Amino acid sequence: MRCEVLAVGTELLLGQIVDTNSSWIGEQLALAGIDSLFQTKVGDNAERIADCLRLALGRSDAVIVCGGLGPTQDDITRDVIAEVMGVELRLDPAIEHRIRTMFESRFRHMPENNLRQAMVPEGASTMAEMPGTAPGLVCPIGDQVVYAVPGVPYEMKEMVLGTVLADLQRRAGVRNVIRSRTLRTWGHSESGMAELLAPYHDELEQSGRCTLAYLASGIEGLKVRLTVKADTEDEARQVLDDETRLVCSVLGDVVFSTDDVPMEQVVLDLCRRLGLTLGTAESLTGGLIASRLTAVPGASDVFRGSVVSYASEVKYDVLGVPRGPVVTEDAAAAMAEGACRVLGCDVSVAVTGVAGPAEQEGLPVGTVFLATCVGGEAAAVPVRLPGDRERIRQFATISVLNLLRQRLLAEA
Amino acid sequence: MRCEVLAVGTELLLGQIVDTNSSWIGEQLALAGIDSLFQTKVGDNAERIADCLRLALGRSDAVIVCGGLGPTQDDITRDVIAEVMGVELRLDPAIEHRIRTMFESRFRHMPENNLRQAMVPEGASTMAEMPGTAPGLVCPIGDQVVYAVPGVPYEMKEMVLGTVLADLQRRAGVRNVIRSRTLRTWGHSESGMAELLAPYHDELEQSGRCTLAYLASGIEGLKVRLTVKADTEDEARQVLDDETRLVCSVLGDVVFSTDDVPMEQVVLDLCRRLGLTLGTAESLTGGLIASRLTAVPGASDVFRGSVVSYASEVKYDVLGVPRGPVVTEDAAAAMAEGACRVLGCDVSVAVTGVAGPAEQEGLPVGTVFLATCVGGEAAAVPVRLPGDRERIRQFATISVLNLLRQRLLAEA
Repeated sequence: MRCEVLAVGTELLLGQIVDTNSSWIGEQLALAGIDSLFQTKVGDNAERIADCLRLALGRSDAVIVCGGLGPTQDDITRDVIAEVMGVELRLDPAIEHRIRTMFESRFRHMPENNLRQAMVPEGASTMAEMPGTAPGLVCPIGDQVVYAVPGVPYEMKEMVLGTVLADLQRRAGVRNVIRSRTLRTWGHSESGMAELLAPYHDELEQSGRCTLAYLASGIEGLKVRLTVKADTEDEARQVLDDETRLVCSVLGDVVFSTDDVPMEQVVLDLCRRLGLTLGTAESLTGGLIASRLTAVPGASDVFRGSVVSYASEVKYDVLGVPRGPVVTEDAAAAMAEGACRVLGCDVSVAVTGVAGPAEQEGLPVGTVFLATCVGGEAAAVPVRLPGDRERIRQFATISVLNLLRQRLLAEA
Repeated sequence: MRCEVLAVGTELLLGQIVDTNSSWIGEQLALAGIDSLFQTKVGDNAERIADCLRLALGRSDAVIVCGGLGPTQDDITRDVIAEVMGVELRLDPAIEHRIRTMFESRFRHMPENNLRQAMVPEGASTMAEMPGTAPGLVCPIGDQVVYAVPGVPYEMKEMVLGTVLADLQRRAGVRNVIRSRTLRTWGHSESGMAELLAPYHDELEQSGRCTLAYLASGIEGLKVRLTVKADTEDEARQVLDDETRLVCSVLGDVVFSTDDVPMEQVVLDLCRRLGLTLGTAESLTGGLIASRLTAVPGASDVFRGSVVSYASEVKYDVLGVPRGPVVTEDAAAAMAEGACRVLGCDVSVAVTGVAGPAEQEGLPVGTVFLATCVGGEAAAVPVRLPGDRERIRQFATISVLNLLRQRLLAEA
């Protein structure tokens, strides 16, 4: 069973609204075991909507049309569906009554425009869920079906969850479940991981039942997404567990999370488990590490604070870095030690480097020193990070947190 | 000239990533005066990508294909475009050299996979912008053209802004200029601003030549976007200047920027002009303010640093806040004073409050105290901020920076 999504609305094409509806519907379809191979956005134009709808019916079994069910003249989804079905629109008295009652209950006059929303193509049925004034429509065309739902996300979601998915599964006789899991990694490139995993390609693919996708995500790490198609929920979980074990055994400790948890939360959880408090000393990252850590609810029982030492004097005077060059391994190590001392924390990370736009102390943009301090012992390493200012800051953040993670795991 | 967008990636269909690229491209095309009537998402499947590409070329003059240019086996956009063009892929030695150099400059081994990215369809040219390892491609097919850009947003944007839009406008012989300007505001609600501007509606619309849109953008402030269609660049600028003056005169000093500059940069520029250095003391925001300030290139001549005092002891011991409750006006003021003293800066902002999930010191989530310190004099105000943890942190950041901005303007 193939079902595609057609999102209607000129504002979507103009980028005034991001089409999150299609993404959400796509996710629901996947979880329901329905293939969704195309998603299209089209403006409020009858001819082009009709063309898209006919095209979709030529390559899929079902289509969900999202948007264009409002009361105004540019809401033409109903009319186009009737045209494609080759039927007339007729006024549905039950829907008219519901709309009138809705207005009356809010002590408001119903504009005559709203009666447009009670027009239903002959042969179509309306959905039971109707949180707004636009009814959802189930429009059979031979063996195929077109669903029309409003573009307002909460109205659309109620109808998709309440009517559309079950109707699709019933039509498809679906039993399949599709489940996915995201492993997060840091330390290998996308192509490097692909190379490492290549020998296991057949085993991982399981004759097409399982797919692997890589996703570069900056500060979120490089994600490996496993997706599996199975007969039952239990089987899907079993396959995902097996695949996860295999990938982890090949990639080793570059995998920092098997349940899509971000690095900062992994580090907070690890510190919490080891009974350690955490602080940061930041120059290049300028508070980004602290900001990420404190974005995690419940960070306060582990995280003590940060000294953002952007000016060299703050490094010398507050953190006790020896006067001299501040973009060095020694300075990074001294910053990490200073953080533990000043903030009264057990472990810390520190970053100094050149984010650009200009070079500093004769060092090129991207030169970065990362340090950790554990048990009073500081250790620093140089790295060379790619990209623009923001990416260098992001890569430094996840890299230094990963260093602390690996050091704590090694010493634990 | 019609240009449509084809976003490639199974993860888009599955809703694992929301396709914000197409929306952004759609917005840029509209601003450049290019019609974009269809946007399609398709998975990593050669046959279906080819079908979509041929369909798009059957109804539009140009197609921007976004995604599928990575180094792994599922990145097949290059291959499909060559197939649709009816040509072979050939290795581009210049691109190969750039990719190898990129890896070498990071002291990393280049996986052989990455050579795939140097394969270019015969007759296609590569774009000058190449921030990653995937070159953008300009692929002429008769009078038509296919552009291929990576799915990584910052790479895609650099190429669209640098090459694609200008190439499209040249091909289209576009004369009309559509220009827009974004005013940023903080302090009024969207409906409040609309009410204030309502009496000037006709004057602002200029018989449909100019449109006004409001856009709530969290930490970026509430944006007012003016868009104008004119015959010449000069005329567009003139109209935008007039509109900007009118909107600013009605809204007053809630407008903090008329050239889309973020609040943190406005504050840095203001401090620089006044010859003042800046620091922050952050509890609730946990480094977010410092992180935002240091994201601005050149921040280092104004910004000294921050004390992120997440734990109460850091507030007492480092910042000198008197022992006792730490979510109060007095504590916020003491933090701001402490920041100036510890960091050796002229002015500072400080934030303490309850970001949630749980209440603190008997105060509900959203209770926040904002402080500024100027010339040794601290001033604090209580506010009540809406939303979840992240929105509270964002609103606190822009609110406290706005307080400092208004205070510096008043005292300057």
